[in-house]
Amino acid sequence: MTERLTTGLIAERVGAELIGPPDLKILRVLPLSEAGPDAITFARDARFASRLGASRAGAALVTRGIETPGFDTASRALLVVDHADTALIAVLGLFAPEPPRVEPGVHPSAVVDASVKIGRDVSVGPGCVIERGSSVGDGTVLVAGVTLGPDVSIGSSCVLHAGVRILERCSCGNRCIIHANAVIGSDGFGYIPDPAGGLIKVPQIGDVRIGDAVEIGAGTTIDRAKMGSTRIGDGTKIDNLVQIGHNCIIGRFCVLCGQVGLAGSVTIGDGAMLGGQVGVADNLSIGAGAVIGAQAGLTCDVPAGAKYIGTPAGPLRTAGAGMAAIGRIPRLIRRIDRLERALAEKNLVPPPDEES
Amino acid sequence: MTERLTTGLIAERVGAELIGPPDLKILRVLPLSEAGPDAITFARDARFASRLGASRAGAALVTRGIETPGFDTASRALLVVDHADTALIAVLGLFAPEPPRVEPGVHPSAVVDASVKIGRDVSVGPGCVIERGSSVGDGTVLVAGVTLGPDVSIGSSCVLHAGVRILERCSCGNRCIIHANAVIGSDGFGYIPDPAGGLIKVPQIGDVRIGDAVEIGAGTTIDRAKMGSTRIGDGTKIDNLVQIGHNCIIGRFCVLCGQVGLAGSVTIGDGAMLGGQVGVADNLSIGAGAVIGAQAGLTCDVPAGAKYIGTPAGPLRTAGAGMAAIGRIPRLIRRIDRLERALAEKNLVPPPDEES
Amino acid sequence: MTERLTTGLIAERVGAELIGPPDLKILRVLPLSEAGPDAITFARDARFASRLGASRAGAALVTRGIETPGFDTASRALLVVDHADTALIAVLGLFAPEPPRVEPGVHPSAVVDASVKIGRDVSVGPGCVIERGSSVGDGTVLVAGVTLGPDVSIGSSCVLHAGVRILERCSCGNRCIIHANAVIGSDGFGYIPDPAGGLIKVPQIGDVRIGDAVEIGAGTTIDRAKMGSTRIGDGTKIDNLVQIGHNCIIGRFCVLCGQVGLAGSVTIGDGAMLGGQVGVADNLSIGAGAVIGAQAGLTCDVPAGAKYIGTPAGPLRTAGAGMAAIGRIPRLIRRIDRLERALAEKNLVPPPDEES
Repeated sequence: MTERLTTGLIAERVGAELIGPPDLKILRVLPLSEAGPDAITFARDARFASRLGASRAGAALVTRGIETPGFDTASRALLVVDHADTALIAVLGLFAPEPPRVEPGVHPSAVVDASVKIGRDVSVGPGCVIERGSSVGDGTVLVAGVTLGPDVSIGSSCVLHAGVRILERCSCGNRCIIHANAVIGSDGFGYIPDPAGGLIKVPQIGDVRIGDAVEIGAGTTIDRAKMGSTRIGDGTKIDNLVQIGHNCIIGRFCVLCGQVGLAGSVTIGDGAMLGGQVGVADNLSIGAGAVIGAQAGLTCDVPAGAKYIGTPAGPLRTAGAGMAAIGRIPRLIRRIDRLERALAEKNLVPPPDEES
Repeated sequence: MTERLTTGLIAERVGAELIGPPDLKILRVLPLSEAGPDAITFARDARFASRLGASRAGAALVTRGIETPGFDTASRALLVVDHADTALIAVLGLFAPEPPRVEPGVHPSAVVDASVKIGRDVSVGPGCVIERGSSVGDGTVLVAGVTLGPDVSIGSSCVLHAGVRILERCSCGNRCIIHANAVIGSDGFGYIPDPAGGLIKVPQIGDVRIGDAVEIGAGTTIDRAKMGSTRIGDGTKIDNLVQIGHNCIIGRFCVLCGQVGLAGSVTIGDGAMLGGQVGVADNLSIGAGAVIGAQAGLTCDVPAGAKYIGTPAGPLRTAGAGMAAIGRIPRLIRRIDRLERALAEKNLVPPPDEES
Repeated sequence: MTERLTTGLIAERVGAELIGPPDLKILRVLPLSEAGPDAITFARDARFASRLGASRAGAALVTRGIETPGFDTASRALLVVDHADTALIAVLGLFAPEPPRVEPGVHPSAVVDASVKIGRDVSVGPGCVIERGSSVGDGTVLVAGVTLGPDVSIGSSCVLHAGVRILERCSCGNRCIIHANAVIGSDGFGYIPDPAGGLIKVPQIGDVRIGDAVEIGAGTTIDRAKMGSTRIGDGTKIDNLVQIGHNCIIGRFCVLCGQVGLAGSVTIGDGAMLGGQVGVADNLSIGAGAVIGAQAGLTCDVPAGAKYIGTPAGPLRTAGAGMAAIGRIPRLIRRIDRLERALAEKNLVPPPDEES
């Protein structure tokens, strides 16, 4: 952000229709509740747009056709676009601070085995450790304190943030972002009872293979396969503190929100979305494009394109109506008590048995 | 702990009324189930106090007015105080081992950019990395392997435990404690569908601003704002493995228990408490002083001072009674079946339709 | 894996009865869905065995007595054993890649206080930090970037993966595996209201004591005791991203799956199993051998050997039937509406009151 931006300039840059003054100085982009006269905000839908009038925002990016009651375009500017969410990306780009400067090269405090293959313009930050047989592709950045075990392969143009741990023989493709303190390739969680007492650890001899353009959240853990590979498909986005068990196979362009937990050998089709804190039992399959509501607990397969919620999860329509009605159970019990008593008094039904 | 403590001395130090022998030697403070004759334990309420008699504890700190049946004060000592919880803090202080010794200065293995401003009596431990433009206030301790990105500001008298990651432009105030491997300032989780297929990452150009006297748990992750700031108010306490999404605004003196997950743009008022594993959907607002029960899933705003539980969460009274009655649904179904059959046989109601 | 393996050789090595050709070359072991003609897979039960015929696997390890319809033993090999799960461990051993080579010694970049006691054949990897008064037993490996606070005791033959943090005065026994970025000994989460406003931190002066042969997952956090010890018993296995509060006492050979959360002072008996994302309120007790279903929320003690599920959790039979029936509540309401209306029309019961 090196120039002074006005409402007119911003409209021009993002291809918006301007309604209101073109010469308002805009210094920042802020959420609706925090935007003052020097800020542009955005409203993707009617709910947010209804609050624009009462806000102090000097300018607002809105999706075409949405009403903005009380937003006076004599003194404030509307920038109207086809999709406010999409245009916001351009606006954020206009106001983005300079990203952290990255210097190519291997920091002297990093410990890199002589056998490691490092591409062009790679940055290996302070305290990173790369073990024998690993490789790092062109333009990839290991921020600081990153650990790559032996025979790890990282593609080009990736960013591995501080404290990321990738264990032996795991790989990731190109243009991946792995956030701080994520762990890729920890052992899967498998034991069998020891006839002599206790538990025997099942060896976890597989690996983790991550595709291109995958984003993995801070503190997320992805276990290596017991045998074969745990796989994360191209373009899939995984939020913070997600747990992915051994031998899970996740398709392309999936979205896993924060604190999702997948037990072992779960299969997820392309484009599926899992809300926050969803749990999935082992060996289940979630079809392509399925949507699983936050906190759901899956105990059965989910067909492609289906929407499931609840614990145990079921189709949105039935499970949702059921969950919404839980608070009505006590009243239901009282109503049945009353019917039974009234009818038994008239000898129309036998007296209630004692089971309840 | 350098002196020999007796029941009399402890009572004097914490301002307790002593009932029982003053000369019992007390070497440690322990929970009720583990305390032996050389230990003092505590009982904050009647439930714990009822177990004191059968315990082996030599001494017990109890809140005034609570019965301690079977606890013989001829041989054991009661220390009676107005609030056992409060007095326990003083007792713990008497028995606390010396805290880890911290030597001021920058460890030779730390990597600190020349532009970084370091206050007086700061300790920067082994393997820490502080990037350009950052500052660390007086008396703050970075234990080991801590990473501060560029332009990070840390106040005075803070402790950042090993492996803490604070990313570019984030800040925290004075007297904060950030536990090991917490991550502050990872990217928010935002994507929009790409008309050409896949997902486009929404830039996350904001930061995280943490107030004074905030405590943040081990492994907790707090995402930077998409624009503006994710904010944690003064005195708020956050437990381990909590996930806080972009643009959340958390008030003062809030308590977030372990594994809570907040989606984006959640607002929490002063003094609110969230139980363990609570999940909160995006853009919701929780009023000041509200209490959300463990594992609740919030899908609506919560008024100030309200108590909510369940998934989807509702007010304690209705939601709680409903949740407690879930196990009675199968019996309810049988009771209705029976009524319908009996009444249909007598032609008092039409036969049940086939929908069920 | 240095030799060429055939179906005959594998059968001999694992003590299996071979049905089918002994001379098939087997290069890998893979899950059923991924196994091709050069791979051996396994089927522990009838459900998996029923899919063997349609698979492409060249060989399969199966439990004796299980049908394998469509699996042609003229061209493919069955290896029949008493327990496929147990025999699989031997098969995995045959195909396991060489484990990462570990060189004994202290890496020059590690920072180890002069007072630290290091056993024989210990490996302290790059960037590790060991503070004063700590000890590390024979044959133990600290992979990289591991931090041991002062007075920490680690037994022999342990592996502490990259980024593990163990804080002051905590200990672990022999043959433990602690996965990457786990945190042992962070402060318990305890505060009391300050009469002057805000919250006062309760000192956490205890420690964490971990037994022998314990495995702790990546990113898992175990808090130190407020006083005394948080304890993990011998042979207990804890998965990734689990949160264990202060003063929890966990028995021997317990299994805690991913993202389990225990509040403070929870007691768990030997051999108990907690499914993924289970939450347990403070001061509860779970009996030996109890099994808690995934995502359950415990608000009461659980007897030894019991199976509990749901939130609030109850015995499997009642709670399970209730949870499975939640989706039927709306229909129940309609059925009662209908009965009430029909009976009120005939003046057999008073008209429904207005409460509902």
